[in-house]
Amino acid sequence: MIHREKTRRIMIGNIPVGGGAPVIVQSMTTTHTKDVNATVRQIKRLERSGCEIVRVAVPDIESARAVAKIRTAVNIPVVADIHYNYKLGIEAVKSGADALRINPGNIGSRGGLKSLIKEAMIRKIPVRVGVNAGSLEEDILFKYACTPSADALVESAIRNVRLLEDMGFRDIKVSLKSSDVLTTVEAYRKVASNLDYPLHLGVTEAGTLLRGAIKSSIGIGILLAEGIGDTIRVSLTADPVEEVKAAYMILSSLNLRKRGITLISCPSCGRSEIDLIRITKEFEKKMNAVTTPLTVAIMGCVVNGPGEAREADVGVAGGKGVAVLFRKGKLIKKIKEKEMVHVLIHEVMELSKKKGEE
Amino acid sequence: MIHREKTRRIMIGNIPVGGGAPVIVQSMTTTHTKDVNATVRQIKRLERSGCEIVRVAVPDIESARAVAKIRTAVNIPVVADIHYNYKLGIEAVKSGADALRINPGNIGSRGGLKSLIKEAMIRKIPVRVGVNAGSLEEDILFKYACTPSADALVESAIRNVRLLEDMGFRDIKVSLKSSDVLTTVEAYRKVASNLDYPLHLGVTEAGTLLRGAIKSSIGIGILLAEGIGDTIRVSLTADPVEEVKAAYMILSSLNLRKRGITLISCPSCGRSEIDLIRITKEFEKKMNAVTTPLTVAIMGCVVNGPGEAREADVGVAGGKGVAVLFRKGKLIKKIKEKEMVHVLIHEVMELSKKKGEE
Repeated sequence: MIHREKTRRIMIGNIPVGGGAPVIVQSMTTTHTKDVNATVRQIKRLERSGCEIVRVAVPDIESARAVAKIRTAVNIPVVADIHYNYKLGIEAVKSGADALRINPGNIGSRGGLKSLIKEAMIRKIPVRVGVNAGSLEEDILFKYACTPSADALVESAIRNVRLLEDMGFRDIKVSLKSSDVLTTVEAYRKVASNLDYPLHLGVTEAGTLLRGAIKSSIGIGILLAEGIGDTIRVSLTADPVEEVKAAYMILSSLNLRKRGITLISCPSCGRSEIDLIRITKEFEKKMNAVTTPLTVAIMGCVVNGPGEAREADVGVAGGKGVAVLFRKGKLIKKIKEKEMVHVLIHEVMELSKKKGEE
Repeated sequence: MIHREKTRRIMIGNIPVGGGAPVIVQSMTTTHTKDVNATVRQIKRLERSGCEIVRVAVPDIESARAVAKIRTAVNIPVVADIHYNYKLGIEAVKSGADALRINPGNIGSRGGLKSLIKEAMIRKIPVRVGVNAGSLEEDILFKYACTPSADALVESAIRNVRLLEDMGFRDIKVSLKSSDVLTTVEAYRKVASNLDYPLHLGVTEAGTLLRGAIKSSIGIGILLAEGIGDTIRVSLTADPVEEVKAAYMILSSLNLRKRGITLISCPSCGRSEIDLIRITKEFEKKMNAVTTPLTVAIMGCVVNGPGEAREADVGVAGGKGVAVLFRKGKLIKKIKEKEMVHVLIHEVMELSKKKGEE
C-alpha cells in the first residue's frame, strides 16, 4: 500500500484534487479550441474513457470565448491553458473555465498577472502554476548555466507560488515538467518537501504512444509510489484518449485506482501450447469498454498458469489445446482453446453485472 | 545520475552481468525450441533489435538437444529455462547452453538439483535462481497464508541461493518476479539488501504491449532508479522484439543506456499549427533501424518548442505551416511543414554518420 503525502485540497469544478482525494486523471484536447464542435466531440470521447478533468489551449480570444459553449456542453471541468497574454485568462475565467493553467515563464508583467489572479479570486477559480523546462524564466535559466535542472524548475515554481501568495491567493496547484525523467522526479520530490499545494504530475513531451507511455510510467510511477502526486496527465503524441487509458494503467499498476480489466498474461514462451498473443489481443479489444475493476489472467502453460489464474477474478491456464477455467480461485471446468475468448468474455460480463448489482 | 548498487559479476557467455557492467537487455523466444529454424530466425531478429542475452524454454529432451544447433547459429548467449526436470538442465548444459534458469519452486528433489549444479560447475555455467509468484514452494506459500507476498518471494530466493552455496556454487543470478508491481519492487529491494548476487529484473505476466510496457516500466524503472538491477527483461504478451525495444526505452528514459533515437515530442494541443501526430509517427517508423544514440525534438508550437529543440541533437519547432530547424542548439533554417520528415531524416543520417566516424 502506498502512503500518500498530505497536501491541501482544491476543487476543479466538482472534482477534489489533493488532501487525500483519489489521484485524478487529466488530459488535454488536440483540437483547435475555437472549433467548439470538434472540441466538444473530443471531450465527450475523453469523458467516456474516464478522463476527469480536461484542459484546452487558449491561444486567442476566440478560444477563450469558446470555453463558454464548451463548458455547457460537457460534463467534466475544463481548464484553460494560458500563455503570454493574461487577458486571455481573464476572458476564459469569464467564460466559465473551471481552472487556469499559467506558465510562470511567459505570463508577462506582474500587473497583468495581478488582474488575472483578482478575477480568479472573485470567481473562486484555482490556478495551476505550470512550470515547464522548455520555457523557464530567463533569469533563472541564466542562474543555472542555461540548464533547466530540477533546482531551476523548483526555483521557478516556488517564486511564482510566493508571488500568488503575496496577492492573497492560495487556490493553487503546481507542476514542474521536464522531458527528462530523472529531472522531473527530482524536481517534484524537492517541491513536495517545500510546498503543501496539490501536485499535478507529468513528464512533458514524452513522445509517441509506447515511448511516451514508458517514459511517463517511470516518472509518474516513481513519484506516485513515493506518495507524491494528486493528479496526473500522461503526455503523448497520440489521440488524447490513449493518454487517459495509459493513466489508468499506471494507477492500476500501483493499485491506486482500478478501472476496467487488469490483465495478467504471460509472454507465451516455447512452453505454450495455445496461441496466447492472438487470444489475449482479441480478448483485450472486446473488453475495452468494461469499466468494472476485474483481474483477468490468461496464461499459456502449467508453470505459473494455475497459480496466477487462481489469484485472479477470472483466469485460464492453457495446456495442450485445452485450458482450465478458474473463477474467484475455484477451478470451474476445462474449456477448448477456441472457446477461450468467448468463455472469458462471458465470465467478465457475469462478474461485471454482479458487481454492478452489489 | 543513478548510483548503481555494487553486485558480484558473472559472465553469461561473453556478456558480463553485474559488478558495474551496463544493464543488459534480455528477451525470451516464443517459438518451440525444438523447432531450430524458427527459433534461430527469431533470435536473429532479437539480435538485430539489440537483445544481448536470449532465453529459450526447455520443456522436453528435443528442446534441450536443439540448444546445441541453436547456439552455433546465433551470436548472443543462450539461457535454457528449466522446470520440473533437472535432467533437461543437464542435457541443455551439455548442448552448450551459456546459462540456466531454474525455478526453485518446481525443480524437484535435492539430489537432482545437486547433479545439475555439479554439471554447471564443471562447465562454469551460471544459474539464475528465478523465483516466480505463480509457482512458489508449497511450504513457503503455506507459511505466508497462501499469498505470494514480497517476503515469501525473498524467503524462497534466499533459501535456494543458500542451497546452491552449500553445494559450493556461487555463479548465481537472482530474480523474484510477481505480476504485482509493488510486490515485485518490495521483493527486489529486500533481496538487494540481503544478497550481493547480480539481479535480473522483471515484472511477470505484465500483459499486452502497452499495458505490459507500462507495468514493467514502473516496476523496473523504480528499481533501476534506486540503483537496483543488472539485467532486465520486459515481459510482454507480444513479439519479443517489442520486449527489447521497450527495454531500451526504459534504460534510455533513465539515461542508463542509449540506443537509437530518443524522441521528445509534444502532445500537440490546440496551439499546434502542424500535424504533429502524423509527422512524428512517420519519422519514428523510418528511424526504427537507427542505433546511434541521438536526441530528436519534434515540437508543435512556440511555447516550449524552441527551448526543447535547442537542447536536442536535432530539433524542429513548428509554427504556422513552417518550422524552425535546430542542430546541436544552433538555429539552422526555416523549413516547410511538408519537408519536416525529410529534413529530420537527413539530419539524423548526417549526425549518425559523423558519430560513426568519430
